[in-house]
Amino acid sequence: MPRKVDHHERRELLADALMRLAAARGLEGVSLRHVAAEAGVSTGMVQHYFRTKDEMMTFALGMVMDRIRARSTAAAAPATPRELVRGLLLQVLPLDETRRLENHVVLAFLAYAAVKPSIASDLRESAAQTRTFLADQLRAAGAAGLDPERAAAGLLALVDGLGLQLLSLQYAEEDAVAALDAQLALLFGPA
Amino acid sequence: MPRKVDHHERRELLADALMRLAAARGLEGVSLRHVAAEAGVSTGMVQHYFRTKDEMMTFALGMVMDRIRARSTAAAAPATPRELVRGLLLQVLPLDETRRLENHVVLAFLAYAAVKPSIASDLRESAAQTRTFLADQLRAAGAAGLDPERAAAGLLALVDGLGLQLLSLQYAEEDAVAALDAQLALLFGPA
Repeated sequence: MPRKVDHHERRELLADALMRLAAARGLEGVSLRHVAAEAGVSTGMVQHYFRTKDEMMTFALGMVMDRIRARSTAAAAPATPRELVRGLLLQVLPLDETRRLENHVVLAFLAYAAVKPSIASDLRESAAQTRTFLADQLRAAGAAGLDPERAAAGLLALVDGLGLQLLSLQYAEEDAVAALDAQLALLFGPA
Repeated sequence: MPRKVDHHERRELLADALMRLAAARGLEGVSLRHVAAEAGVSTGMVQHYFRTKDEMMTFALGMVMDRIRARSTAAAAPATPRELVRGLLLQVLPLDETRRLENHVVLAFLAYAAVKPSIASDLRESAAQTRTFLADQLRAAGAAGLDPERAAAGLLALVDGLGLQLLSLQYAEEDAVAALDAQLALLFGPA
């Protein structure tokens, strides 16, 4: 009896192909047909899982967010709020091949959302969740003299900006990590 | 006698057309022909000024940087280091239509540089200059307990990230300005 098709796995396979294309050439000119070719499947198969490119991009974005969360949870163990925050943010930054691919898809999604506001809602929700998590950790650490919401917003923006700078080759990896650590020292006190 | 053609003015006119296209649909699918149509000139005229789209994008990026600098210098008057920094960074953020257009072109350029490293060098140089300016102001303000280079890198990344979040509709303008002001308070002390 043939193995039941794992639809989620299939979708992930296609989203991974989309990520490779995002890294190699950006996503604006990419069609479902290109994704089919990259994944080595038929265009019909892609269309079975995603009716439009927007649907596939939204799925890929969600997949990236889930993977980042899963990796940072796996790395966490019992940890201080500062360690939890640092662990999560290091999983976001494009510091290895996996994370570079993920950042390419996020950047392509952001650039697309900037000209197509209707697809920005998933992004907005995911960013709001991350900000809430960061603010909770700052509160738990009892960081004095800070507005946790503002500080969390600034920290997330800083990491988004570092990711953008790394991906567009403006900045070196070790400098980006050092800038993140300097910010964590400002917010949580010296390590 | 006909007025001598102002070549720089012509280039700016074309770069402005490119910026409008960037805001409306992104830049990846845009050709010199689209820019000619948007500017209301012939494709030949565009080709006279720019041989390639990369050349035009690089010019447009430089133009945006010059305009940001000119606006923040005009706004400066005699000012404290903190006011100089805030003035510059507010000129960078997409807080009105002009700056939104500029941010669209910068974001399109960044997304392009992420998949075409050879055009990233202007960007890298411009970012390095901005970081140096910010570090100089932090030093001039005598901010205690900070590494000015790291703090400047973090501040620029934070503003890049806020710009990205504003443009992709993740975040409200007043929250972005509040997050910037919270960071300035961390770096320079309470206002």
